[in-house]
Amino acid sequence: MRPVPGGLGGKVAAAARTLELSPEQHRREDELTQQVLAAFASARSPRLRQLLTSLAAYLHGNLREVRLTESEWDCAIQFLTAVGHTTTGQRQEFLLLADTFGLPILVVNINSPAAGELTEATLLGPFFGDGGPEVANGDDISAGAAGEPAWIEGVVRDADGNPIGGARIEVWGCDADGLYDVQYDDGRVCCRAHLFTDPAGRYWFWALRPVPYAVPTDGPVGILLEATGRHPLRAAHLHFRVSAAGYRTLVTNIFDADDDTQDTVFGMKGSLARQFEHCPPGTPTPDGRPVDRAWSRVRFNMVLATAAAPDDPHAEVKVVQ
Amino acid sequence: MRPVPGGLGGKVAAAARTLELSPEQHRREDELTQQVLAAFASARSPRLRQLLTSLAAYLHGNLREVRLTESEWDCAIQFLTAVGHTTTGQRQEFLLLADTFGLPILVVNINSPAAGELTEATLLGPFFGDGGPEVANGDDISAGAAGEPAWIEGVVRDADGNPIGGARIEVWGCDADGLYDVQYDDGRVCCRAHLFTDPAGRYWFWALRPVPYAVPTDGPVGILLEATGRHPLRAAHLHFRVSAAGYRTLVTNIFDADDDTQDTVFGMKGSLARQFEHCPPGTPTPDGRPVDRAWSRVRFNMVLATAAAPDDPHAEVKVVQ
Repeated sequence: MRPVPGGLGGKVAAAARTLELSPEQHRREDELTQQVLAAFASARSPRLRQLLTSLAAYLHGNLREVRLTESEWDCAIQFLTAVGHTTTGQRQEFLLLADTFGLPILVVNINSPAAGELTEATLLGPFFGDGGPEVANGDDISAGAAGEPAWIEGVVRDADGNPIGGARIEVWGCDADGLYDVQYDDGRVCCRAHLFTDPAGRYWFWALRPVPYAVPTDGPVGILLEATGRHPLRAAHLHFRVSAAGYRTLVTNIFDADDDTQDTVFGMKGSLARQFEHCPPGTPTPDGRPVDRAWSRVRFNMVLATAAAPDDPHAEVKVVQ
Repeated sequence: MRPVPGGLGGKVAAAARTLELSPEQHRREDELTQQVLAAFASARSPRLRQLLTSLAAYLHGNLREVRLTESEWDCAIQFLTAVGHTTTGQRQEFLLLADTFGLPILVVNINSPAAGELTEATLLGPFFGDGGPEVANGDDISAGAAGEPAWIEGVVRDADGNPIGGARIEVWGCDADGLYDVQYDDGRVCCRAHLFTDPAGRYWFWALRPVPYAVPTDGPVGILLEATGRHPLRAAHLHFRVSAAGYRTLVTNIFDADDDTQDTVFGMKGSLARQFEHCPPGTPTPDGRPVDRAWSRVRFNMVLATAAAPDDPHAEVKVVQ
């Protein structure tokens, strides 16, 4: 039998040894795990081999540790089947399922290593579109959608504190009902736009203060959340994607520091929470625009990483063409 | 934060510490993993909590160890989506995918613990039907399907060597083209039947010698097998399901010891391989039946476990209703 990279088989075997199993039972399970790991030895690339071998080892470790029963297994296959059939061109139930296990945000964290004052990345989410219409700094992107007006401003800098002018900022958020424009059937475009930083790296615009909203619960993931006593809410947030030549594209959010919703998809990071300053009706606005009700304002400065290396050294791994 | 059962979080963190990551990066990833594990703390039952917590910990361990890239993640979601859409009432691509990772056979092994001379269990497979027509010992179950006639005989006993009379034996297998009856559109029933052991625990019947055959390769799992340099063949086998009051139902196979196909779904076990004795044309048959060509014969004795406990103590875990 070929050796397994990284000694994964040994690691799994060690985990299983903590259970009260007969030596012969151990031997049978170890032998199977090793057979499976060896079966991926001829994968098309070393990276694909690594990915599949590691996945197989961890999945075997999981099933062996919990001693999964046959009816539980049948239930798992039924569940995945339901997730597959709920996934359409408009709805990605697999991604939602993965979100409830914190996997997409883990992938974000792995690929946006912590370094100094760099702004943390978070989830892109399912409502990113094509960047929305271009607006000028100072414009209102809400396009008539209901919600509390919010003045958003900030500066985009590099890690040395130099402003990044001409950075493209895509921004999108929900309305007061917790819905994004693409969730309506009427083709509306609102709370979605892109703009550019000025030469001093500054940006400013009017939008809506975000509110918490529920992920879809009418599919199998809703059943899972219910069975685990978890609510379906996302913490209030406004999405940003910031790109500039020579810098790593940043996908991030502002979160509302006054909202204590436990984000059900784990996208909320403390470093991204900002206080939305409450401004009663009549408070003068930064740009002199008349606003006849309460509004809020928030500052969100961002620090981009230099694009030192290609974003993705493993982009050649493509199983699905 | 609540403690995590079994110290899984610590185990995952320990695995990740072997990588060259900054302390802050470790802290962020550990914190996320712990958040996710804690989110399952209110699961409907302790068992459901255990299952989901362990799964989450192992999945995080996997992604953190391989440092999955964002394009690889997208590829994985695309792949699962394709598996979901390939799965229909007639085809279970998730089960096939799991088979290529040896998960169904692992679940079989976990739930059929090794003990003395008990016959090993193996995969039920996707072609089990409703048991097929009842036949008498000595009957031919091939019903005209093409293939080499095979005389199958054996004794069903308990672990103390006592014969088990009246045991119900369901048997099903493929024809010479590697196809099961249910894979044809014409409603045929062949190479599929059930019969009962005589008071001495004996059974005997005519069937067809099994041949290797390919699992379906026209879906995403076929792409995965191709990308990993694996063939799609199952080792030649004939299916048995044996049930008797007071005994644990045994799902097993005879494998043909002369067939050296590496079973792509890992169902082949050495203890289940039997020599099919080759009988040239004209060799007298055990029951005097005239056979005008070469045939074979095999003996397959089986030992059943006493049904000491309910088959599945965790059957209450049902996420999908």
